[in-house]
Amino acid sequence: MITREGAEELDDADELAFLRAEFLPIEDPGVVAYLDGNSLGRPPADVAERMRELVHEQWGTSLIRSWSRGWLELPEQLGDRIAEVCLGAGPGQTVLADSTSVCLYKALRAAARLRPGRTELVTDRGNFPTDRYLTESVAEELGLSVRYLDTVDEASLREVLNERTALVTLSHVDYRTAEIADMAAINTAVHECGALSVWDLCHSVGALPVRLEHSGTDFAVGCTYKFLNAGPGAPAFLFADARLHEAIEQPIRGWMSARDIFAMAPEYRAAEGIRRMVSGTPPILGLAGVAAGIELTARAGIERIRAKSLALTELAIQCHDAWLERLGYRLGTPRAPELRGGHVTVEHPSAERLAKRCGEAGVIVDFRAPNGIRIGPAALSTGYTELWDGMHRLRELS
Amino acid sequence: MITREGAEELDDADELAFLRAEFLPIEDPGVVAYLDGNSLGRPPADVAERMRELVHEQWGTSLIRSWSRGWLELPEQLGDRIAEVCLGAGPGQTVLADSTSVCLYKALRAAARLRPGRTELVTDRGNFPTDRYLTESVAEELGLSVRYLDTVDEASLREVLNERTALVTLSHVDYRTAEIADMAAINTAVHECGALSVWDLCHSVGALPVRLEHSGTDFAVGCTYKFLNAGPGAPAFLFADARLHEAIEQPIRGWMSARDIFAMAPEYRAAEGIRRMVSGTPPILGLAGVAAGIELTARAGIERIRAKSLALTELAIQCHDAWLERLGYRLGTPRAPELRGGHVTVEHPSAERLAKRCGEAGVIVDFRAPNGIRIGPAALSTGYTELWDGMHRLRELS
Repeated sequence: MITREGAEELDDADELAFLRAEFLPIEDPGVVAYLDGNSLGRPPADVAERMRELVHEQWGTSLIRSWSRGWLELPEQLGDRIAEVCLGAGPGQTVLADSTSVCLYKALRAAARLRPGRTELVTDRGNFPTDRYLTESVAEELGLSVRYLDTVDEASLREVLNERTALVTLSHVDYRTAEIADMAAINTAVHECGALSVWDLCHSVGALPVRLEHSGTDFAVGCTYKFLNAGPGAPAFLFADARLHEAIEQPIRGWMSARDIFAMAPEYRAAEGIRRMVSGTPPILGLAGVAAGIELTARAGIERIRAKSLALTELAIQCHDAWLERLGYRLGTPRAPELRGGHVTVEHPSAERLAKRCGEAGVIVDFRAPNGIRIGPAALSTGYTELWDGMHRLRELS
Repeated sequence: MITREGAEELDDADELAFLRAEFLPIEDPGVVAYLDGNSLGRPPADVAERMRELVHEQWGTSLIRSWSRGWLELPEQLGDRIAEVCLGAGPGQTVLADSTSVCLYKALRAAARLRPGRTELVTDRGNFPTDRYLTESVAEELGLSVRYLDTVDEASLREVLNERTALVTLSHVDYRTAEIADMAAINTAVHECGALSVWDLCHSVGALPVRLEHSGTDFAVGCTYKFLNAGPGAPAFLFADARLHEAIEQPIRGWMSARDIFAMAPEYRAAEGIRRMVSGTPPILGLAGVAAGIELTARAGIERIRAKSLALTELAIQCHDAWLERLGYRLGTPRAPELRGGHVTVEHPSAERLAKRCGEAGVIVDFRAPNGIRIGPAALSTGYTELWDGMHRLRELS
C-alpha cells in the first residue's frame, strides 16, 4: 500500500498541481479533506472578483445596456465553450439555461415530440431521482409508458427497444457506482430502432472527455456545479444536435426562445438554432460562475483532468483494498479504468453513520442511500495527500 | 409646470431619499438619468460584498455543508419575505425558483390540472409575449383552446367566462400602458365561474402593494430583477394559495420537489406545501441578489414606495403635458393614480428612433414596439431631479 510519503511524491509530480492555487482556500482548519467535488466543486479564486466587476461595471454602470453588450449572447457563448472544452461538440448546439431538471424536462418533451406515434420511454431503474421522476411525469402527461432497464448496457437495452420506443434517457456516469455507460454503442442501438437519445452528463462533464458528436448523441443535459466549479445551483447546459434543430419544439416558450425577442409579436415563432431551447431571461450572476469555472477546466485540458482523476480514484481503490475491505466495506465502483467515472463509492451497512462521523472529523464525503459512501476527488482541486489523509481517517473511524 | 428647482425641492423633502445612497453609483458620467428601473433595477451597494462573503465563507469554506446550513431553506425563506414585504400573503405559499417563464409554465399547468374537463384558457391579446406564448403552448399540449380579451376589465372578462373556463391568466400591471387590473374583482368573477386565476406580477412587485390573499388570488408569478433590484436574470417567485397545495401537481418534478429529497426513493411523492412547485437545485448566487434587493424594499416599506412612485409618475405626466404633447406625443398611461402602475409610457410615431437618441444622450429609457417610450423611475433609486432632467432632455431631442 502506498505510504503518505508516496502520496506526497504524487503531488510533487502532479502536472496539474499548479491549479490548486487557483481555488479559494478552505478557511476552516477542521477540514482535513474535501472529497465531495462531485456534489459541489470549490470556488475558483477569481470568482468573487468577477462578480464584483460584473456588479459594478456591467449591472451598476452599463445597466440595462449590458443586455445588448454581451449578456444576451452569454448562454450560447458559454454553451459553445463547454461544448468545446468538455463535450466534444461543435458550436451552436449547446446553451446554458435553467436547472438540470428544467433542461431535462425540455429535452424529454422535445425528443418525444420528434417521434410522434411512438409510445415508450426507456430509462433505468437506478437512474438519479430527477431523471426517473421526469421520465415518468413526461410519459404520464403524453399518455405514454415507461420501460425500465435493470442494468445499463447495450444488450439489456436491445431487449427493450422496439418500434414503439420514442426515446432512451440514461446517465452517462452513474451517480452511485460511477460506472460509465457506452454512449456510442447505446446511441447506435437507439438509432437503429428509430428512437432518440437523451443523456444526463451531470457526473461526466468536467471529469472525463465526453464525445457527443462522435457518439451520435441527440440530446444531453448536465449541471455545472460539480466538476465544473460554477457554484451552488449554477445554470445547467442543454445540448441538441444541429440536425434536429429545425424540427424541435419545446413546451416552455418564454420570450427568449422566440425568433425576434423584442418584436413582442402576436404569433410565436421559435428562434433558429439552439436558442429555441431557452425559456426565460438568462441568469447573469450564475453565468459569471460558469465562466470562471469553465476557464480552469480549459487551462488544465480535459485529457489531463481525466488522467489525474483516474490516478486519484485508483488511489482511493488501493486504500479501500488495503484498509477498508477487512473492515466490512465493499467496493461499489468498477475497477476497470475505462468503466470508471470521477468518483468512487465504498459500501458499508453503516454507511450513513460513518459518513456523518467522517464529516464531523473533517473528511467531507457524501452518503448515498442505501449504503454508499461516495468519495469524489476533483482533479483540479484535490491533492493526492489530501485524498490519502481522508481515506486514512475513514479507516480510523470505521 | 414644475421647475428644476421645484424638482430639487421634492428631492429635499423625499423621505426615501436616504435610500439612494444604498445603491451603487453609476460610474458613467454620460448617464444623465436612469429611467429603466422597470426593466433592470440597479444594484444595492452591498450586493458585491454579500456575494464575496457567500463565495468565501459559505461556498468556499462550509462547502457542501452549506446546503444543510441554510441553503436548502432559502427558496422558501425568501419567498416568505417577498410575500410579507410586497405581496400581502402569509408564509408558506411563495417560493423563489427558476425564471418567470418556467414559473408561469408550472403555474398554468398546475391550475389547468386542478380543473379537469374544462377546456378554455383565458388571457389578453396585449399581454406580455411570454404570457401569451405559454398560454398557447399549454393549451396546445393539453388539447384546450385560448380565448383572448381585448381589454382587461371585469366586464370584458365576464363576457368570455363560462363553465368551460379552466383558468384566467393576466398581468396585474400592463407592461406597456402600466394600467392596473382590478385583481379582486377579476378574481371574484373567475371564481364565480369555477375557474382559477394566475397573475403575472412582474411590473407590480416592489412598485405597489399587491394583496394576493385579500383579493383571493390562486396563483401568481413575478420577476425580482425589476423594482426589487435582485440582479439580471435573478430567480423568479411563484405563489400558490395554501388551500390548493394538497391537490397541486406540476409537470417538472425535479428532485427538489420530492417529499424526502435525499431518500432517492423509487416512487415520486410530492413535497407538502409550496416546495412541490420547485424543480431543480436552487440558484444560490442569484438568491443572494434577491436577499439584498428585498431588504431595501423592506426598509422603505411598500406603502412609502407606492407614494413616491406615484409622485414620480405624476411628475413624468406633467412633463408630458407641458412639453411633449405639443411635439406629437400621446400619453399611453392612465392619469388616474389608482389605475397607474410604476411606469409611464409616452407614445410617438418615431418612438424607436427617439428612444435610441435618448440613450445616446444618457437618458436611459425603453422602447416598446410599436410606438412606446417607457419611462420607469424607481422609487428607491430615482430622484425627482434625475427624472426632470431626463424628461427635459427627451423634450430637447424630440
